[in-house]
Amino acid sequence: MKINRATYEEWAARASKELGNKPLDGLMQDYGGLSVKPAYFAGDLPEEAAGETPGVAPFTRGVRATMYANRPWTIRQYAGFATARESNDFYRRNLAAGQKGVSVAFDLATHRGYDSDHPRVVGDVGKAGVAIDSIEDMKVLFEGIPLDQMSVSMTMNGAVIPVMAMFIAAGEEQGVPVEKLSGTIQNDILKEFMVRNTYIYPPEPSMRIVGDIIAYTADHMPKFNSISISGYHMHEAGATAVQELAFTLADGMEYVRAAMRQGLDVDRFAGRLSFFFGIGMNFFVEVAKLRAARQLWAGIMKDFGAKDPRSMMMRTHCQTSGVSLTEQDPTNNVVRTAYEALASVLGGTQSLHTNSFDEAIALPTDFSARIARNTQLILQHETRVTDVVDPLGGSYYVEALTSQLVAEAGALIQEMEEAGGMTMAVQQGIPKERIEEAAALRQTRVDRGEDVIVGVNRYRVEEAEHVDARQIDNMKVREEQIAQLKRIRETRDQARVDSALAALTECAAMDEGNLLAAAVEAAKARATLGEISDAMEQVFSRYSGVTRVISGIYDKAYEADPEYKALGARIADYASKHGRAPSIFIAKMGQDGHDRGAKVIATAFADMGFTVHFGALFETAEEVAKHVEEMGVDAVGVSSLAAGHKTLVPELIGLMKAKGLEDVPVIVGGVIPEADYAFLHEAGVAEIFGPGTNVLEAAFQVLDRIEGRLSNR
Amino acid sequence: MKINRATYEEWAARASKELGNKPLDGLMQDYGGLSVKPAYFAGDLPEEAAGETPGVAPFTRGVRATMYANRPWTIRQYAGFATARESNDFYRRNLAAGQKGVSVAFDLATHRGYDSDHPRVVGDVGKAGVAIDSIEDMKVLFEGIPLDQMSVSMTMNGAVIPVMAMFIAAGEEQGVPVEKLSGTIQNDILKEFMVRNTYIYPPEPSMRIVGDIIAYTADHMPKFNSISISGYHMHEAGATAVQELAFTLADGMEYVRAAMRQGLDVDRFAGRLSFFFGIGMNFFVEVAKLRAARQLWAGIMKDFGAKDPRSMMMRTHCQTSGVSLTEQDPTNNVVRTAYEALASVLGGTQSLHTNSFDEAIALPTDFSARIARNTQLILQHETRVTDVVDPLGGSYYVEALTSQLVAEAGALIQEMEEAGGMTMAVQQGIPKERIEEAAALRQTRVDRGEDVIVGVNRYRVEEAEHVDARQIDNMKVREEQIAQLKRIRETRDQARVDSALAALTECAAMDEGNLLAAAVEAAKARATLGEISDAMEQVFSRYSGVTRVISGIYDKAYEADPEYKALGARIADYASKHGRAPSIFIAKMGQDGHDRGAKVIATAFADMGFTVHFGALFETAEEVAKHVEEMGVDAVGVSSLAAGHKTLVPELIGLMKAKGLEDVPVIVGGVIPEADYAFLHEAGVAEIFGPGTNVLEAAFQVLDRIEGRLSNR
Repeated sequence: MKINRATYEEWAARASKELGNKPLDGLMQDYGGLSVKPAYFAGDLPEEAAGETPGVAPFTRGVRATMYANRPWTIRQYAGFATARESNDFYRRNLAAGQKGVSVAFDLATHRGYDSDHPRVVGDVGKAGVAIDSIEDMKVLFEGIPLDQMSVSMTMNGAVIPVMAMFIAAGEEQGVPVEKLSGTIQNDILKEFMVRNTYIYPPEPSMRIVGDIIAYTADHMPKFNSISISGYHMHEAGATAVQELAFTLADGMEYVRAAMRQGLDVDRFAGRLSFFFGIGMNFFVEVAKLRAARQLWAGIMKDFGAKDPRSMMMRTHCQTSGVSLTEQDPTNNVVRTAYEALASVLGGTQSLHTNSFDEAIALPTDFSARIARNTQLILQHETRVTDVVDPLGGSYYVEALTSQLVAEAGALIQEMEEAGGMTMAVQQGIPKERIEEAAALRQTRVDRGEDVIVGVNRYRVEEAEHVDARQIDNMKVREEQIAQLKRIRETRDQARVDSALAALTECAAMDEGNLLAAAVEAAKARATLGEISDAMEQVFSRYSGVTRVISGIYDKAYEADPEYKALGARIADYASKHGRAPSIFIAKMGQDGHDRGAKVIATAFADMGFTVHFGALFETAEEVAKHVEEMGVDAVGVSSLAAGHKTLVPELIGLMKAKGLEDVPVIVGGVIPEADYAFLHEAGVAEIFGPGTNVLEAAFQVLDRIEGRLSNR
Repeated sequence: MKINRATYEEWAARASKELGNKPLDGLMQDYGGLSVKPAYFAGDLPEEAAGETPGVAPFTRGVRATMYANRPWTIRQYAGFATARESNDFYRRNLAAGQKGVSVAFDLATHRGYDSDHPRVVGDVGKAGVAIDSIEDMKVLFEGIPLDQMSVSMTMNGAVIPVMAMFIAAGEEQGVPVEKLSGTIQNDILKEFMVRNTYIYPPEPSMRIVGDIIAYTADHMPKFNSISISGYHMHEAGATAVQELAFTLADGMEYVRAAMRQGLDVDRFAGRLSFFFGIGMNFFVEVAKLRAARQLWAGIMKDFGAKDPRSMMMRTHCQTSGVSLTEQDPTNNVVRTAYEALASVLGGTQSLHTNSFDEAIALPTDFSARIARNTQLILQHETRVTDVVDPLGGSYYVEALTSQLVAEAGALIQEMEEAGGMTMAVQQGIPKERIEEAAALRQTRVDRGEDVIVGVNRYRVEEAEHVDARQIDNMKVREEQIAQLKRIRETRDQARVDSALAALTECAAMDEGNLLAAAVEAAKARATLGEISDAMEQVFSRYSGVTRVISGIYDKAYEADPEYKALGARIADYASKHGRAPSIFIAKMGQDGHDRGAKVIATAFADMGFTVHFGALFETAEEVAKHVEEMGVDAVGVSSLAAGHKTLVPELIGLMKAKGLEDVPVIVGGVIPEADYAFLHEAGVAEIFGPGTNVLEAAFQVLDRIEGRLSNR
């Protein structure tokens, strides 16, 4: 019997009837530039899909023929906090409990190239990652973890040279020669300029560093991935799937060029490039994103002249989304992470980090880390999704979505190429602005309840469930690190240090030789991370990003909203009464460069009619207090996402008081554990806005505070 | 460009190379009679798949064209405990928090047709569901829940006549005429004889009851589903997907015949038949199972002469699997339930119950119930899987698996038909035995670590996480119910009750008239559930199931296992020393008919060489003590899954002591909250085996106990 193929048109007629003969427009979806229909049929299958075989370029169906039927993905949990000793204990407990590989989170001081005793990092030491000042710390970090057997992933970009140097030197002192070290270094500086901001030097010398590391590892470290080109942070900053794909792959193209400029043949290093994506809640989009990424990259590498199939093979690490998690009703996050993990796996990732359910509150506890790991173990052992390679292959929807992502991301990559490539585009701030637009748009949808977040803008519960949060005593960590630095400086061969650092500076200045090779000598001589970083900074300088605030997103989303209009009227009223609009200074203090939240707030408040001043990143409390005084703003909003709030906010309030600014309300927003609320209010904080705050409601509260202040006078 | 279709053969050559030129046999899977390959290609697509349209028979892609793009599935959480008042409070809290519809769990006394003051149900009242004795309880149960607007699902099979009668009468007294009542009654008695055992009467009169209910609802209740043909309990009892599908659909065929025997035209009632499946951890099998079920049912109904497409449309409720959950590390169950819920939804269910994570320990608390409900809310609102109808349609794997399930289940249905249909097959115990075989096989795989359960047979944690469990004071519930029964009996018009009950008995005896219609009159007159049930029992009699224990499963699975051999040697040694093998009596007490665990243990112990006596279901402690005395067994194993252990086990131990049997060790297995362990040991229990116990290890412990007893003499 001949079977007729079902078609969209036939289906649409029937579907419309079910809707009472209404058109189907309401069922169409726009996922940030991807148009999704309510049903897919065999006719939606892209022609080339039928030819795709797992393990064969363009690898849409996965990079290995037998994946995961023969071997599952690697469970690689990113972690680190406090001292090297405490992190080492944590790694060893988790390795014993079924985790594979180690993935190191460094604290922000380390990321930004400062030793723990630097005055700018008082609030940051050991907080959102482990504090590493020297080879001695690095050796403790990997004690009992044989570096010739265990692969190590390190999330480091800004201070990549000293960290890689210390890792290599620590391996050598553990008895492991450099060629046996395996693992991955993130080393993706371009995305730092777009979204994460843990850069140190300007884009151009930063790109030289990337090239030097690729060259060094190509020569000496055959088992080490020289770069992990990261869309994750774009994803977390609010990028759409198309943006995440396009900007990440365009970044990858720049790194390939940087390596080729070092004279390397593409097939010599391409196999050591790896990728890192964020996996959020839009289930099928995330699956298709990984499939599309592989297909696109295979084409890109072919265009670069790669001959070896392994050069065209995109290997990916994925992490479930942190911003998809909520502070409210945190057990819900176990569910979210489970779905994201499954999407990563059905997309074909090689390794995976699953977030802990308390991630929106604090660093994981042993319990929450176990549940996160168990999520992957249950996926691997109980769901049987590993038994069949690429089980979604052929799905009309998934294949069509994959193909649409390839087309849309391909067009955006082309646009970046036409802007002169990503280094140029980044310098002009183009991708950053696009992502910030998408993030602000998403926030309006959440604020307006168009995108539902369970437990946050709907189904909210009154009595909060208590969650034990991991507390880091960062002052104690800092003291220990300072004592250790003192010991090292007193006992080392200072002349050897000085000469190694001078050689490094020379290497930076002459634009020849390999920076990493020079830094390894300095690390062995016990030069500190800050010293190695400074030795290059003398030549390269330290980069300050330009902050721009986009506008119009809220105005458009709330066009006819009565509440929004009411706020506008109050602000206009205020302006006519006081001769100027109410003003707010948005501050980011310490080394925490996560600026998505601050940017969204700045955009929203500016649209609403506030005068918004956006401070530079990485300011000290003193610098912020000075701006507040000079600008005479009506309120200060401090955005904190990396746990520095208990140190820096009280310091700021103290300094403002000393300047007679005690009546300027200080508002804090970001990731603040509920346990710290009382402490902050005690310290004088007027309002605290946690994750899931409705921005419009927050604006009313801020205005109340400002008007309260004025009427108090 | 012409694209060549990828083939399994090309892929296999490459895959084998990846495995070091080993054959791919090791990657093939057997899912209980389904052979699954490690990769699927376009060539695996069944030809007819290309013609399938959502909303069009055979409904493989779903029963509605716009599902769920237009409207999501119904979140229907099954719940009930203690008194009608407490359950009513719980329903109302949950309805306020986003749940749709009510689904009532009755206690075991109610299921088995006993009033709460019956001596056989002392330990069961209000425990695993709500206690309902009369229309007065039913009215309280739905207080403030408008029965003309809210659909009500009731899981009731044995005592379906009194419960339906009280529901109809309560609706009337709430002011809702019978034709406006909407909802579902389970009313699936055949599966009770196979797996769940909450039957009352023998199969033949039970089938008459089913037919009478279908006829009554066809005449009077156009919005009410007259039956929910349930695979769920087979799934939970260990049935394979093929078995669950085949036996459920074969049951459905019997009910269609029963209704047709009442003279109903198939199109008059077929649209009110509904189905209920269990969704376990084998993700894609569960998705394909629902797709295959719809396709098979459409064909079956066509063969029955259905003309209306709605008669061919299988509507399903699903519930995530209870047996897939673990007592150990219960937060892992949030992950498991999340995956099962997603599989249900990708399979296209119309409504869904998600289990609470503490389900393996006790009844859900408000917190665990919220997380279970939120799992569905997150799926509906955050994952976007509802945007596209049947998103897996076209997947080579899912389509091939669907087709394989249709073929295998179709063959098994045919086999049941050839055995004379399911009523006959059930009477011969055929399906029960098949399911018990599958369950025992699964247990051997878990015991041997071939099937990994995270936190149970691998990745076990030492320190248990504390979970608050809901405690039911069933003695207090029972007292309240008894007082209420007394009030009703004192105040009702006894003559009216007597005459209504006599009419019901007459209706049963004459095999004409409608039992439900007669029972409604009795319910209105305030006859109790037990009285209505008894009025029919006088004619129908009460059924005692025949228990058979299958054998050989453990012997085969452990063929060459040294531990198993060691146990065998110890048992042989014991037998030669004592002149007989060690013996154990396996008891099921109270109204809890869940016998999977007890059967698996009986099979395993018999295979190992124990002499196993399997008691009848529903025994009292006195009856068990008497058997133990008469048989002179060496140990007693009590299996409890419905929370009666705190009442019945101490009673048994007391009775055994009175008979001088205090040195016969009493072992308890099943769902026992850890909080009750101390209480049970205090009461004299020798060993407690919770979910996840390794049966071989347990056997060693039981033997130790037995030998300890003997040496103590």
